[in-house]
Amino acid sequence: MAEQPRADLLSPDTHGARTHTCGALRHDDTGEGVTLKGWVDTRRDHGGLVFIDLRDRYGLTQVVFSPQDNQDAYEAAGRLRREDVISVRGTVRPRGDEAVNPNLATGTIEVKGDSLAVLNTAETPPFVVSAHEERQMDTGEALRLKHRYLDLRRPALQDNLTLRHRLYQTTRRYFDDHDFLEVETPVLMKSTPEGARDFLVPSRLHPGRFYALPQSPQTYKQLLMVGGLDRYVQIVKCFRDEDLRADRQPEFTQIDVEMTFATEEQVYDLTEGLMADLWADLEDTTLETPFPRMTYAEALRTYGTDKPDTRFGMELHDVSDCFAGSGFRVFESIVDGGGDIVALRVPGEGDRNRAQMDRLEDYVTEEIGAAGLIYFQLPSDGSEMTQNLSTDALPKEYGRAAAEQVGATAGDLVLTLAGDPPTVYEQAGDLRLYMGEETGARPDPRSGEDQFLWVTDFPLLEYDEDAGRYVSMHHPFTAPQPDDLDHLEDDPDDVQARAYDLVLNGNEIGGGSIRIHTRETQQRVFDVLGIDADEAQERFGFLLDAFRYGAPPHGGIALGLDRLVMLLAGADSLRDVIAFPKNQSGQEPMVQSPDWVDPEQLETLALRLDLPPDVEPPAHVARRSRLAS
Amino acid sequence: MAEQPRADLLSPDTHGARTHTCGALRHDDTGEGVTLKGWVDTRRDHGGLVFIDLRDRYGLTQVVFSPQDNQDAYEAAGRLRREDVISVRGTVRPRGDEAVNPNLATGTIEVKGDSLAVLNTAETPPFVVSAHEERQMDTGEALRLKHRYLDLRRPALQDNLTLRHRLYQTTRRYFDDHDFLEVETPVLMKSTPEGARDFLVPSRLHPGRFYALPQSPQTYKQLLMVGGLDRYVQIVKCFRDEDLRADRQPEFTQIDVEMTFATEEQVYDLTEGLMADLWADLEDTTLETPFPRMTYAEALRTYGTDKPDTRFGMELHDVSDCFAGSGFRVFESIVDGGGDIVALRVPGEGDRNRAQMDRLEDYVTEEIGAAGLIYFQLPSDGSEMTQNLSTDALPKEYGRAAAEQVGATAGDLVLTLAGDPPTVYEQAGDLRLYMGEETGARPDPRSGEDQFLWVTDFPLLEYDEDAGRYVSMHHPFTAPQPDDLDHLEDDPDDVQARAYDLVLNGNEIGGGSIRIHTRETQQRVFDVLGIDADEAQERFGFLLDAFRYGAPPHGGIALGLDRLVMLLAGADSLRDVIAFPKNQSGQEPMVQSPDWVDPEQLETLALRLDLPPDVEPPAHVARRSRLAS
Repeated sequence: MAEQPRADLLSPDTHGARTHTCGALRHDDTGEGVTLKGWVDTRRDHGGLVFIDLRDRYGLTQVVFSPQDNQDAYEAAGRLRREDVISVRGTVRPRGDEAVNPNLATGTIEVKGDSLAVLNTAETPPFVVSAHEERQMDTGEALRLKHRYLDLRRPALQDNLTLRHRLYQTTRRYFDDHDFLEVETPVLMKSTPEGARDFLVPSRLHPGRFYALPQSPQTYKQLLMVGGLDRYVQIVKCFRDEDLRADRQPEFTQIDVEMTFATEEQVYDLTEGLMADLWADLEDTTLETPFPRMTYAEALRTYGTDKPDTRFGMELHDVSDCFAGSGFRVFESIVDGGGDIVALRVPGEGDRNRAQMDRLEDYVTEEIGAAGLIYFQLPSDGSEMTQNLSTDALPKEYGRAAAEQVGATAGDLVLTLAGDPPTVYEQAGDLRLYMGEETGARPDPRSGEDQFLWVTDFPLLEYDEDAGRYVSMHHPFTAPQPDDLDHLEDDPDDVQARAYDLVLNGNEIGGGSIRIHTRETQQRVFDVLGIDADEAQERFGFLLDAFRYGAPPHGGIALGLDRLVMLLAGADSLRDVIAFPKNQSGQEPMVQSPDWVDPEQLETLALRLDLPPDVEPPAHVARRSRLAS
Repeated sequence: MAEQPRADLLSPDTHGARTHTCGALRHDDTGEGVTLKGWVDTRRDHGGLVFIDLRDRYGLTQVVFSPQDNQDAYEAAGRLRREDVISVRGTVRPRGDEAVNPNLATGTIEVKGDSLAVLNTAETPPFVVSAHEERQMDTGEALRLKHRYLDLRRPALQDNLTLRHRLYQTTRRYFDDHDFLEVETPVLMKSTPEGARDFLVPSRLHPGRFYALPQSPQTYKQLLMVGGLDRYVQIVKCFRDEDLRADRQPEFTQIDVEMTFATEEQVYDLTEGLMADLWADLEDTTLETPFPRMTYAEALRTYGTDKPDTRFGMELHDVSDCFAGSGFRVFESIVDGGGDIVALRVPGEGDRNRAQMDRLEDYVTEEIGAAGLIYFQLPSDGSEMTQNLSTDALPKEYGRAAAEQVGATAGDLVLTLAGDPPTVYEQAGDLRLYMGEETGARPDPRSGEDQFLWVTDFPLLEYDEDAGRYVSMHHPFTAPQPDDLDHLEDDPDDVQARAYDLVLNGNEIGGGSIRIHTRETQQRVFDVLGIDADEAQERFGFLLDAFRYGAPPHGGIALGLDRLVMLLAGADSLRDVIAFPKNQSGQEPMVQSPDWVDPEQLETLALRLDLPPDVEPPAHVARRSRLAS
C-alpha cells in the first residue's frame, strides 16, 4: 500500500518565484544568486557533499549541498528521494574541468545550494522517469498509461508534446497569413451515420433524442462557405466509434480547411505551403515543392496501395504477358479469367536459402492472404536462376522473361502473385512493404527522409458487396469530375471524383476534394448511394436547403494532425504524441473511462441499460437497474 | 415550395482564380484587368446599364455591365437576383465624382464588366442579408438560426467571427511567448458529477459504460502540472448539461491556463498581460494594469454581487444605524434579527412621480423578490424630502439621516431594502443594476468603456440547504488559505479560498485558484464536502494517486472566451459570436439537433429508451422500441 509521506521534510516555500528554469543557466551566469524549482531527478552522496540533479521541462541543473554552506539544507538534501519537489536558493559556480558534462546544456556550471525548501515529497514511483535515459527502465505501456502523469515527465514525451505545440503555432500562423478564419464548429451535432459509427450524446432536455459527436465538421465547413466566410480553418477534435484496431484513437485531431472558389491546384498549393513552413520551422529542412502527383490507378498498379511509400523501389509490374503460353495452369486460368500476374524485384535477396523462402511463403499465404507465392532467385554468383516450381510445370524461360521485365540481375529475388485486380495488387503492395521493412530498404521513421505525394483521380464510388450498393470512396459530398457527370447513373464505376489524398512516406496524412455545390448534383449522388429524396431531406436537408440560396463552388482538405506529429517526431505510436491517449480498447487506464454511471443519471436521460447477458454490471448499478425496470 | 432553379443562366467558370477580393480595389488600380467572385448583393438597372454590388467577406465592389461592352453579359446580368454567385472579369475605372461612395472602401472605383459567369443561382432568400444595413429586415432569431448560412453572410456577424479569430491568434501568440505549451486534453473522459450535470456518451465497446464530456479540463490540467509540463494553455470546448437559461450554451469555449509553482500574483500578472495584448490588438486601447482588486466580502457589501460593474456609482450602504430607535417595526425587527437595511442613492431621480415609483415598487417585489421598497425622494427644487411611509410610521428625521449617509442631495432618490444578508445585499445589487440600466448610468456594451476588477478572498465553501451539506464555492480542488486550514473541519464557513475571479463591466469573464497539491489536504476537503475516502478514490483516485508521486504546487485560471468576444464585439448575445449556436432550448434549428436516432443505434449501445408518458417518439422509433422490449 501507500508509503507514509515524509511530512516532516516539508517546508513552506519562502523562496518566492524561481529566477531561472533548470535548463537556463550557463557559464556566464557564474556568481549569480538564483532560485530554481523542480523535481529531484537523481541524488548522489559523494565526498561529504550531496549532489542533486534538479529537473524541469526545460532541463537539468546540478545542485550541490555541503554542510559548510548550510547544515540544515545539507541534511534535508541527504534525505531527498527521486521525484521529490524542491525549491533551491543558491549561487551559480563553474564546474571543475573534470566535472563538465558536454551532453548537458547546463553542464559547465552547478548551483551551490544555500537554502532548500521541500515543497512536496514523492513515494517510490512505479517506474523510473529520469531525464537520464540510461536510468529509464523498459516499462510496459499499460503501467505507463495508468500513471501517465509520471510518464509525461520523461523528456522524450515532453519533446513530442513540445513539437506538437510548435506545429499548432506554425499552422495557425500560416493560415492567418493566408486570410483564413479560424471558426469553431459544434461538437454537439446531429447523427448522420455514413461510414463509421457516431458517438451519441443523449439529451436530457429532449428525452429520447440524441446529439452526435462529429466524425468531421464536413457539413459545417461547407455551410460556412455557403455563409460567405470564404476561407476556414480549424484544428478540431473528431470522433469515430470504430472497432478495436491497433493505433487508432476514438478521438483524434485534424487540421480542417475549406476554401470558396477553390480549385484542386489551389488546395495543393496551399497545403504544400503549409508543409514547407512546418518542415522549415520544425525540421529546419527545405521541402521541394510542388509535390509529385500520381493517379489512384497508377498508385494501385505500381505500389498496390493508394498511399504508396515512394522512398524505395520494388515497384509492381504486370508480368502476365511473360507467362502467355507457359502451360502453367494456375497462371493461365487466372489470366484467362481477367486476372493479373504481378511481380516485384527484391534487390540483393537472390541467395536466400530454402528455409528463409519457406517462411516467406508462409507469410504470404497466412498474413497477406494470397493463394500462393511463385518466386525466381537469381544467385549473386551469376549461376542459373532457380524457382519454386518444377520446370515441368513452368519452363524456366517464362520466369526469365518476367525477371527481365522487372529488371532483375544477378543477386535479385523476383516474387510473383497472381489473382484478380485490385486484390492481387493490394496483396503485392503488402508484400512490397513487408520486403521493404525486412530488407531495410524502407527508411526508418527516424531517418528524416521524407517523401510527399499527391494521389489524385480517385473513383467517386466503390461497390460495397456487403451492403449491396455503391458507397462513397471519400464521402457523399465529393464532386464528380464534370465530364463524368453524364454517366453517373449508367456507369457509376467509371465516374472519377475531384478528390485527392496527401501521402507522406506511405502514410495518408490528409484527404480532400472539391465539393458538390448544387442541390441537383447532390441529390443525384445521394440517389446513386441509395439515399432517396425523403431520407436525404431528413438527414442532410440543411445542406440541400443551403444549396438553394447561392452556394458557391468550394473545396478543401483535412489533415490528420496526430499522424503528422507522429511522423515528424519519429514516434512509434499515436499514443506517444497525445497527452492522455486511450489504449487499444478505447479506455483511458488512468481515469478508468469509460465507466459505469449512477442509475439516477440514466433515469434523468430517459434511458435504461439493456445489457447483453455476459455483461455483469457492478452491484450498485445492477440493483438500481432492477428497481427501475 | 422550392422555386425552379434558373439553370439556363449557369455558365462554367472559365475565368480562373480571382485576382482580388471584393474589398481590395482602390483608385490606384485604375485600368487594371481583374477577376472578382462573389454574391450579388444588389442589382440596379439604370440608364441602360446594369449595376451589381458584388459582395464577399472582404467588402463590396460595384460592377457595371453595358450592352456596348458585352451584350451577352449585359443580358445575363439583367437577370441576376440577390445572392446569385457570379464571377466577373473586367477593368477597374474611377467612378464619376458624383458617384463616389465615401462609406465604402472601394467607393472611388467600379469595375466595368467584360465577362460574366454565373456559378450558382439563388432562390429568393427567406430574409435579406445585404451588406447595406438599411436593406436588412428585422428578422426573428428563430428564422435566422434555421438559415444560419444566410445570416452568416451579414457583415455584422462576419465581423464578430473575424474578431473572434483575431482573439484566438493574439491569445495563442501571447501564451507561446510566455513558454506555455498548448496541450489537448480528452473530450471523452470520465463522469465525475459535481456541480452541473455531465453530458454522457455511451460506449459501444464496453456496454453499460459511459464516457462524459468535460465540464472543464480541470483535473487533466492539474495532472499535466504533476506531469511536469510546467505551463499549459488550451482554448477548449467545455460542456454543461444545464437547465434552460437565457444566453447559455451547452457547449462553450474557455481559455484554460495552468502554471506550476504559481502564486496568485503570477496568475494576475499573466492574465493582465493577456488582456492588455487583446485590448491593444483588437481595440487599439492601452489598458491600465495592474487591475484593481476587491475582496468578495467588500463586493457583496458595496455592490451586492461577486461581479460588480464598477463603471458607475450607486454603491450600497448599510444604513441600519440610521433607523435605530425609529419605531418603524418592520426595520426594527429585521435589524434585531441580525438583518441589515441597505440603501443606494440614485442621482437625479428625486422628482419621479407616484406612478413611476409604483412601477418601481412592483419591480422590486415581483422581479427582484424583495419584501418591499422604502424610498426617500429629495426634489430637485430643494423642497422637503418625501417618503412612501407615513411620518407616523417613520418620522422623517430617520430617512434624512439615511439620505445624508448615502450622500444624497437635492434631486436624488434614495432606495432602501431590508432583510437578512447576504440576500438583502444581492437584492439591492440587482436593484442597483436595474437603476443603472434604467437611468443610463450604466455604460452601454458598445461604449468601449471597460473596467476590469479582480474579486478575491472567496469563501472556500458554502452551505447548500437543499443538499444539506457544504459545497465548493469554486470547485473541490481549490486550495484553502494556509492559515485557515486548521479550522477547516470546525468552522468551514470561515475558511477562505485561494480563489479569484476576473470581472469585466459586471461580467465574470474568468475564475481560478491556486490548487490543492497534497493528498492529505485534498482528502480533508473531500471529507468536509461529504465525499468519503472510498468515494473519493472511486471518483478522483487518479488525482489522489498522482499527488503521491511528487505533485508540485500549481494554480491557474479559466477565461470564458465566448463572453470575452461578446463584450469586445459589443454584441447582445453569445449567439452572435458563435458560428452555429444552440438556441435557448439547447437545439440547433438548422440541423435540428438533438434528434431521434435509429433504434439499431441504441441496440448496439445496449440502451433502451425509457420515455416519460408525455413524450411521443416518431413512428419508426416507437415501433422498433416496442419490438425491442
